[in-house]
Amino acid sequence: MPERLRHLLSIEPLTAAQINFVLDEAKPFQEFQRYPLKKLATLRGKSVALAFFEASTRTRISFATAAARLGADTINLQAESSSLKKGESLLDTARTLDAMKPDCIVMRHGSSGACQFVAQHLDIPVINAGDGSHEHPTQALLDALTLRDRLGTLDKLRITILGDILHSRVARSNLHLLGKFGCCFTLCGPAMWLPREFETMAPLGGAVRLTSRVDEALDGADAVIVLRVQEERMHEPALPLNEYILLYQLTPERLRRAKPGALVLHPGPMIRGLEIDPAVADGPQSCVLDQVTNGLAVRMALLFILLGGGSESDFLRGLSAKTEGGPAPVPGKGSKHVAD
Amino acid sequence: MPERLRHLLSIEPLTAAQINFVLDEAKPFQEFQRYPLKKLATLRGKSVALAFFEASTRTRISFATAAARLGADTINLQAESSSLKKGESLLDTARTLDAMKPDCIVMRHGSSGACQFVAQHLDIPVINAGDGSHEHPTQALLDALTLRDRLGTLDKLRITILGDILHSRVARSNLHLLGKFGCCFTLCGPAMWLPREFETMAPLGGAVRLTSRVDEALDGADAVIVLRVQEERMHEPALPLNEYILLYQLTPERLRRAKPGALVLHPGPMIRGLEIDPAVADGPQSCVLDQVTNGLAVRMALLFILLGGGSESDFLRGLSAKTEGGPAPVPGKGSKHVAD
Amino acid sequence: MPERLRHLLSIEPLTAAQINFVLDEAKPFQEFQRYPLKKLATLRGKSVALAFFEASTRTRISFATAAARLGADTINLQAESSSLKKGESLLDTARTLDAMKPDCIVMRHGSSGACQFVAQHLDIPVINAGDGSHEHPTQALLDALTLRDRLGTLDKLRITILGDILHSRVARSNLHLLGKFGCCFTLCGPAMWLPREFETMAPLGGAVRLTSRVDEALDGADAVIVLRVQEERMHEPALPLNEYILLYQLTPERLRRAKPGALVLHPGPMIRGLEIDPAVADGPQSCVLDQVTNGLAVRMALLFILLGGGSESDFLRGLSAKTEGGPAPVPGKGSKHVAD
Repeated sequence: MPERLRHLLSIEPLTAAQINFVLDEAKPFQEFQRYPLKKLATLRGKSVALAFFEASTRTRISFATAAARLGADTINLQAESSSLKKGESLLDTARTLDAMKPDCIVMRHGSSGACQFVAQHLDIPVINAGDGSHEHPTQALLDALTLRDRLGTLDKLRITILGDILHSRVARSNLHLLGKFGCCFTLCGPAMWLPREFETMAPLGGAVRLTSRVDEALDGADAVIVLRVQEERMHEPALPLNEYILLYQLTPERLRRAKPGALVLHPGPMIRGLEIDPAVADGPQSCVLDQVTNGLAVRMALLFILLGGGSESDFLRGLSAKTEGGPAPVPGKGSKHVAD
Repeated sequence: MPERLRHLLSIEPLTAAQINFVLDEAKPFQEFQRYPLKKLATLRGKSVALAFFEASTRTRISFATAAARLGADTINLQAESSSLKKGESLLDTARTLDAMKPDCIVMRHGSSGACQFVAQHLDIPVINAGDGSHEHPTQALLDALTLRDRLGTLDKLRITILGDILHSRVARSNLHLLGKFGCCFTLCGPAMWLPREFETMAPLGGAVRLTSRVDEALDGADAVIVLRVQEERMHEPALPLNEYILLYQLTPERLRRAKPGALVLHPGPMIRGLEIDPAVADGPQSCVLDQVTNGLAVRMALLFILLGGGSESDFLRGLSAKTEGGPAPVPGKGSKHVAD
Repeated sequence: MPERLRHLLSIEPLTAAQINFVLDEAKPFQEFQRYPLKKLATLRGKSVALAFFEASTRTRISFATAAARLGADTINLQAESSSLKKGESLLDTARTLDAMKPDCIVMRHGSSGACQFVAQHLDIPVINAGDGSHEHPTQALLDALTLRDRLGTLDKLRITILGDILHSRVARSNLHLLGKFGCCFTLCGPAMWLPREFETMAPLGGAVRLTSRVDEALDGADAVIVLRVQEERMHEPALPLNEYILLYQLTPERLRRAKPGALVLHPGPMIRGLEIDPAVADGPQSCVLDQVTNGLAVRMALLFILLGGGSESDFLRGLSAKTEGGPAPVPGKGSKHVAD
């Protein structure tokens, strides 16, 4: 078993072995989503605090559902009615929540690094559910699970990411994750959305190409990750929307430049007719609904791992027996996100 | 047993036998609300998605409580923080929710037909919790349960509906439901709130009378359904509120025109002093609180029926034993809302 | 056992024996917060309605968590989406909620007396979670539990309350509670925040001193309760914030005027750098996080007592065995909040 996870704050410091471990743990939970009765007692008596300081639909209900299906209770902190509005500091809010004795905090925040900051001050696991434009690690894990299932491997894939790379925490987490498996990336979008420093991101070994030409970007891709145009994170639009549609919308014609059967992923919510043509969104290469279901599986696995649902539980001995061997231990990199 | 319900999208296509079946199933759940411990394991392991795209208090918490008392988990999609705000289509939101593998979606939406549209694209049951000014089928069912309990029958009642008929999904669902039992209707309100086409609604056989004179409207009524003045659905008011109060408020004097002991129903929320006199709202003929409790019973019954809580369950064999015979099968009308 | 509580609407009419009884009942629940699995079946099948007509973070999630850990379901009425916005009266909203058959209503409202008003019209227990500037009884109970634990007694303490006394329901509840134990109070803040009538509050026997000089106020205090500057309850500020900080912020220097080791309490949310210096908030005398955890214990105890979680339950026989003797019965004062 690889170095034990204590938090999930970012993908960057994880090892490939740790990532494989989470994905392997997620397999029985993927199967579980097809059961007629979806309720385990694994985490009964545990509480998962959901602290969403930024609006969220799918991520929030995905974590809430994952917790409920494991038998855990949730403690819901509503950003809108939050004490933060009364001037409380983030750390005081987090400590107050912690004093309610949850077993874990799942947190989304508009500031990059907010989750890390909170984790440094609390003794319980913190899961980053998206922090500013920094990382969205569970999204990258569910994307990886989807890719690995459909393509059989994560190794040395050719991945195209299309859209607003600059503001995207999804892009960052995917680059970190897939880079560990030797994937090559083409990042494509309007020039002002392509951060030049990504070409030389250390852990990725330079296998990142930036281009503003979509046809070139799609050439030979195994998978295309289409990003949402996030109006809420932009100070000014890179292009008028009409121009964006003309130049960057993923259409069936453009998708033909990729490998036959290349996968199309989108973190959602999709804006049909803007970044993606409905024929692609609903086509056979689209994985968007699998991504949602896999999100539940990955989040159940993470809660299971981080809350120590444990080796002693019947569920582990039963459902995930096939993962017990797991990947071989890998010497740690000493990140502060990871401890034994 | 009548044709099996797959969804509950509207009352219009249902048969009287199907309606009686639901009301019969609701009886043990009505009794159940008086139990000191209100928790069943009937739907344990099932998830009910609550997708309220329009604000709601009582309907939402009624469904949530019904689900919890049956042992089901709920998945709460909050309209306010919804991805719809980011430009996602209704169908994509619904499909995303569906990919979280709930066993049923309860949905309220501002557009007439939104629930039907979603149901055509999903494989799980959809319950309409109010769609635009189209229908509010569970309201009509709980009203019918209330009327049947108090009057002993639904057959050939004289029903007066008072208020804003034009914008009322409650009025439409009640007309469809009670029309199947041969009830006669008097619809009363300001002329611009009385849709002329209701006089000739096919399934009702012409037994609908429209009038703007309230005393005439109440003459000989078995029951009066008072509607809320829905400012949020009006482009312009039909009357100044003062005038409305003078002409249409249900007062004790006016109620005396109805049959002795005639029932007064209101879907809530009531605005005392506007559409209803407090003396009527709190009087012995008022059924408003029974309606709320019956709402729980009807919604528990529907979840039980649609989620197949089933013939195998102890609860069915126990509590609802008396309904197992049920009404005789009725040849179906081939509606797309109803399938075997 | 003292006179049985039926509601918890305010501290004012309670006897010291009743207060001690609640605090004693809270002890095993305090211990319980340290258990690795925090789930009891004590109130399984019971429903707790949470009706928060005013925004709340910590109090709401504290009650929700307390209910969940006792095994109860919650019914959540959201103020923002409430029928009140459509013109429904408070009493109709409460009666509607009551018709959903919860076993208790926990209620916060912006109007002083709203909880008492509702309790007079319903047959189920009502717990005041804060009403206007009247009372916040569970806050006073958790403060008392914190003080009793740390100081060994509540008798004859010297308590300083610092800040906006006038608008503070926390101050009122604390004065009522601690006054019953013979505590002496110094209330300190800008003159317009110091209600002169508090000096002669009957149950307190005149042991209340008002002062605008903070150093004098802190002299010899056993505990300092720092209040939040509540901008939302002020029509105009008593002082520019800069002046307030200079004159009234609780700093380490000022705290040295109090007894060595004097406790610092704050109901939260704290605004660091405004009413409290961060060095005090995080210092060894600060009890703010204990207060949060004790809030869970007190609320679990109250739900347990009011919902009759009962003498028959294993939990009672087990965990709270040591409290069964309880304080001796005390002749009732005939308050309408308290009945046998």
